Amino acid sequence: MCRWLAYSGSPLLIEELLYSGDHSLIDQSLHSRFGAETTNGDGFGIGWYAQAPEPAVFHSVEPAWNDRNLRELAGHISSHLVFAHIRASTGGAIQQTNCHPFRHGSWLWMHNGLIRDFEQVKRDLVLAVDPELFPEIQGTTDSEVFFHLALTLGLEDDPPGAVARAVGLIEDVGSKHGVEYPIQMTVATTNGNELWAFRYSSEHQSRSLYFSTAVDALRTLYPDNPLFQQVDVETRLVVSEPLGDLAGAWNAVPESTWGVVQPGADEMHDFTPVPPTSPVAA
Amino acid sequence: MCRWLAYSGSPLLIEELLYSGDHSLIDQSLHSRFGAETTNGDGFGIGWYAQAPEPAVFHSVEPAWNDRNLRELAGHISSHLVFAHIRASTGGAIQQTNCHPFRHGSWLWMHNGLIRDFEQVKRDLVLAVDPELFPEIQGTTDSEVFFHLALTLGLEDDPPGAVARAVGLIEDVGSKHGVEYPIQMTVATTNGNELWAFRYSSEHQSRSLYFSTAVDALRTLYPDNPLFQQVDVETRLVVSEPLGDLAGAWNAVPESTWGVVQPGADEMHDFTPVPPTSPVAA
Amino acid sequence: MCRWLAYSGSPLLIEELLYSGDHSLIDQSLHSRFGAETTNGDGFGIGWYAQAPEPAVFHSVEPAWNDRNLRELAGHISSHLVFAHIRASTGGAIQQTNCHPFRHGSWLWMHNGLIRDFEQVKRDLVLAVDPELFPEIQGTTDSEVFFHLALTLGLEDDPPGAVARAVGLIEDVGSKHGVEYPIQMTVATTNGNELWAFRYSSEHQSRSLYFSTAVDALRTLYPDNPLFQQVDVETRLVVSEPLGDLAGAWNAVPESTWGVVQPGADEMHDFTPVPPTSPVAA
Amino acid sequence: MCRWLAYSGSPLLIEELLYSGDHSLIDQSLHSRFGAETTNGDGFGIGWYAQAPEPAVFHSVEPAWNDRNLRELAGHISSHLVFAHIRASTGGAIQQTNCHPFRHGSWLWMHNGLIRDFEQVKRDLVLAVDPELFPEIQGTTDSEVFFHLALTLGLEDDPPGAVARAVGLIEDVGSKHGVEYPIQMTVATTNGNELWAFRYSSEHQSRSLYFSTAVDALRTLYPDNPLFQQVDVETRLVVSEPLGDLAGAWNAVPESTWGVVQPGADEMHDFTPVPPTSPVAA
Repeated sequence: MCRWLAYSGSPLLIEELLYSGDHSLIDQSLHSRFGAETTNGDGFGIGWYAQAPEPAVFHSVEPAWNDRNLRELAGHISSHLVFAHIRASTGGAIQQTNCHPFRHGSWLWMHNGLIRDFEQVKRDLVLAVDPELFPEIQGTTDSEVFFHLALTLGLEDDPPGAVARAVGLIEDVGSKHGVEYPIQMTVATTNGNELWAFRYSSEHQSRSLYFSTAVDALRTLYPDNPLFQQVDVETRLVVSEPLGDLAGAWNAVPESTWGVVQPGADEMHDFTPVPPTSPVAA
Repeated sequence: MCRWLAYSGSPLLIEELLYSGDHSLIDQSLHSRFGAETTNGDGFGIGWYAQAPEPAVFHSVEPAWNDRNLRELAGHISSHLVFAHIRASTGGAIQQTNCHPFRHGSWLWMHNGLIRDFEQVKRDLVLAVDPELFPEIQGTTDSEVFFHLALTLGLEDDPPGAVARAVGLIEDVGSKHGVEYPIQMTVATTNGNELWAFRYSSEHQSRSLYFSTAVDALRTLYPDNPLFQQVDVETRLVVSEPLGDLAGAWNAVPESTWGVVQPGADEMHDFTPVPPTSPVAA
Repeated sequence: MCRWLAYSGSPLLIEELLYSGDHSLIDQSLHSRFGAETTNGDGFGIGWYAQAPEPAVFHSVEPAWNDRNLRELAGHISSHLVFAHIRASTGGAIQQTNCHPFRHGSWLWMHNGLIRDFEQVKRDLVLAVDPELFPEIQGTTDSEVFFHLALTLGLEDDPPGAVARAVGLIEDVGSKHGVEYPIQMTVATTNGNELWAFRYSSEHQSRSLYFSTAVDALRTLYPDNPLFQQVDVETRLVVSEPLGDLAGAWNAVPESTWGVVQPGADEMHDFTPVPPTSPVAA
Repeated sequence: MCRWLAYSGSPLLIEELLYSGDHSLIDQSLHSRFGAETTNGDGFGIGWYAQAPEPAVFHSVEPAWNDRNLRELAGHISSHLVFAHIRASTGGAIQQTNCHPFRHGSWLWMHNGLIRDFEQVKRDLVLAVDPELFPEIQGTTDSEVFFHLALTLGLEDDPPGAVARAVGLIEDVGSKHGVEYPIQMTVATTNGNELWAFRYSSEHQSRSLYFSTAVDALRTLYPDNPLFQQVDVETRLVVSEPLGDLAGAWNAVPESTWGVVQPGADEMHDFTPVPPTSPVAA
C-alpha cells in the first residue's frame, strides 16, 4: 500500500520532515519495515499550507528516493502543516492524478490501505458521490473516490462523522457485492487548522499508525535535544510508521480509533462506521 | 484537439508512416496546418497488430517530436495495421491513460474532437456505459467514455450502427443539459481486419479528414514512384490532414460520412446519429 | 533555441511572472513570436531565491504549458529574484539535467542560443573547464559547458569579464575547428543580488533581448496601473521577448551589449569577447 | 547497483524472459536477493535485435515493475538476442541517457557495478576516449564511459582484449588517484551474433553472475519440461542472479572470468586486466 506522514506545528523546512531520522519517510520509500509492501516507489505527493488558505500540492510519478525536484522543494519550503505520501500501487496506474494528497478547496486527504475488490464496487460508490463533486474526480484510485464520498457526506462540517458515514457506506456496498472485509485504512485529512487521523479496517487488523509524544513530555525525556526545545509545544506528527527508534517518542494509535490534532489538547476517540439509513442498490 | 493517422495495407516500418513526407504526423505535432491547435504536444500513442489478435499499444506523455523511444520502436517494428495519435489536450490531464488509441480486446479506437461541456454531461454518459465495461475506463477523457459507449451499444457487431447510437446518445444527453452542439469528431476504429472512420459534428462543421487515393490510381498518376509499385493495391491511409502535397494523393471525406477500409472495395456512406429510443434521464 | 525571463524586484508570486500578460512566458512556450522556434516544449526550469543564499531550482522535461506542478508552485511561491526558462532543444536529450537555469553555489545561469557545431568543439571546451569544476557538469548541453567555462574564467568575481573571456575562448576554439560563427547567445546570470544579462553573437545578428522600462517612468506613463504603483522602483524584468504589447514598457537591448540590474542605477555597456592569451590547442 | 539479463537463442517473446520464473528480472527490480541493493527502481532498458543489424533500444526512467509500455512491448516483440537491465543508481541522475544497454553501431553494452570515486577519475578517463567517439557520450554514468573506453581500445575487433585493456586503464587511473579498488563489474556486450560476459573486480569479490546450463543437459534433467524441448540447443542465458530455483539450471561464473556465447561450443577463460603501456597522466 503506502506510507504517509502528517505534520502540524512550528513552521519547519519540509526536508526536516522527509529526510531526517534513522528511518525517514524517504528511507521508507525504499525499505519500509511495517508496510504491506517494502518498496513504496509508485509516485509520491506532498501538500502544504503557505499564505493562501488553499494548500499547494506537488505530485510526481517518480520514486521519492531519487527525485531531485522533491529534494529542492523540501530544502526551500517551510510550512506549519504538511502532508506527505509515498505510494505502492495495488494495481492502478502510476500517474499524477493518482498521487495523494488529494485536494478539495482548503482540504487535503491521504489514505493508506484499500477498498477491496474496488473494480466490482467502484460504480456503486461513484454513483453515491454528489453529482456536483463527481466531475472533480481526476484519477482512478479508490482513495480519491473515498475522499469524495466523505465530502458528499459532510467532511467539511463534521470530519469524524463524515468519515464514519463514508466507511459505513463502503462496507454496505462491499457486503452487497459479497466482499468480506470491504475496507482497510489509515486516513489523514485537514482543513489547514485541524488535522484528523483515522485507523480502521473491516477485519479489525488495521495498518499501523503512530503519533508523536507531546513536546513537553519529550523535553523532559530528552532535555538536551535542541529540536524539542525549539519547536512549539503544540507540534505533532502522525505517521504510518515511526521515523526513528527514539524511545518514548512514538505511540501506536489503537485499533478503530480517530484522533484530532488541534489548538489546545489533542483528542482520541473510538471509531465506528455509520451504515447508510437508506440502502444503496447493488 | 489532436491529429491522427490510420494505416491498413502492406506491412510497413512504422517510421515510414510517422516520419516520412513533407508534412508527416510528427511534423504535425509541432506545426499542424489544419488542426484547431497548431501544437499537438500533450502526449501521443501508437497501436499496431503483430502476430497476436490483440494489438500492442505504446503511450507516452512526452511530445512525439523528440521522443527517443518512439523513434526506436518506429524504426524496428513493422505492421499491416497501425493507428497513431498525437494529442492536444482540451484540459484533461497529460497521462498515459488519457492517450489514444484506446484498446478493448482486439479493438482500437481514436478520436479527434470533443464532447462539449464534458464535465456537465460526464456523469450521465458514464452511467450509460455497461456496468461490465465500466471498470475498464482508465483515464479521464471524453474520448475513452465515447469508446465505451460505442462498445456498450454494439461496436463489436455493428461498428457504424454502434457509433451512430453512441453519437445519438451523446447528442440527447447534451441537449438535455443545454449544450448546443454536443459533439465534434473524427473517429477511427478497427478490429485488426477492417478499419472504420467517421467524420461528424453536431454543427455540421467537422474537423478535417482525408483518405489516400487507391494505389492502382496512384500507380497510373505516378508511374515512377517506387513506393506505389511496392505496396499492396489494398493499402490505404486515413488521416486528419494530408501528410504531404502530392497532387491527387489525398481526398477529403465529406461532412457527415463514415467509411470502411476492408478486403475488396472500400466504401463510404452517409452518417446519421441514431437517438436513443428510451430517453436517458438528465 | 529557447525563451527566458529574469526578474528582480519586489517579492512577487511566480505565477504573476509566468502566466500574466497578453503574451506570457507560458504562452510563448506554445506560440513564440520572436524565437527561432515557435514551440518551446522541450522542458523548462525555474530558479528562485528564498531565505537561503543558495537558490532553489525546479526542472521538468514536460512542456511548461500543461505542467500542473509548475502551476501549483507558481501559485504558492514568492520571490524577489526569479529565473525562468523554456527550452526548444537543438538536438540534445530532453532530460532534467539539460534544463536551465543551471546552478553553482549561489549562482544561476541560463542561455538562449547555441555554440555552433558543438559536437566538434565540445571536447576542447570541456578540457578548458577547471578540473575541480568538471565533475559538476551533469547534462550534455552547450549552455552548461558555457556556464562552467565562465565559472572557470572568474564569473564569481567579475561576471562581465568572465563571460567575455568565455566567449572569446569559444570563438577561438570554434574558429580553429572551422566554425564561421561559433556562438549565438543571450545569457542571464545572477548571484542573488545583482543580475547580469548579455546579448551577443559572432555574426552580430543576435537573438532578441528586452528589458522593462524603469518603474518610475512606467508610473508616469500609466498612472492608473496598480501594479506599477505597488512594485518597488528598482523592479526590473529582462526577457527574450516582451510579455505584452504595452506601449513604452519594453526596450530592446542593443546588439553586443551587457547590462546589470543592481541596487541603485542599472547599467548597460558594450560587450566585446576577450580572446585567450595562451592559445587552446585544437 | 543493478541487475541484468542477456539472452541468446531461439526467438522468444521478451515477456518470457522478463516476467516468467519464480524470481524473474521484473521481480528482482522490487526484491533482489543477491544485489548490493534490494530495490532496482531507477530506470531500466532493453535492447534487442530484429531484422536490422543495428539493435533497437527502449529506455525508461520509471521503475520496471509497473511500466505499462514495457509490459506491452514485451508481450509483442520476439527476438533471438535480448539484453535487459534494471538500474539502482549509485548517485547519478535518473534519465534515459543513463539507462543501459548502451549502443554503438551494432553493439550493445551493459554493466553492473561501478568505477569507484568516479567523480575524481572521470576527467582522466574521458580524456582517454577516442576524440571521434567522445561526442557520442550522452549520459553521465561510469558505465557509458567504460563502454567508450572499451570501444577506443578495440572492442569491435577483440572484445576480451579490449575489456582487459579498459579495465587495466581504469585501475591505473584509479590507483594514481589513490583509489584502492577502482572497479567492480559484471559486463555483457554483443555484436548481435556473439555475446561476451565478464565478471571481475579489483578486490576479487565480484558481484554475482550466472549462466544457464546447456539445453541438452537440461533436457536430460527435465525430460517433461516443454520449454527445454522447444528451444534451440544453443540457447543460453547469462544473468546477475538466477531467475528461479530450478536445481541444476544455473551455474556461477567463477571470479575473474570471461565467457562467450557463440555458434558452436561456448567458452570461459580467466580474465586478467591489461595495464596501459604508455602511462596516463593523473
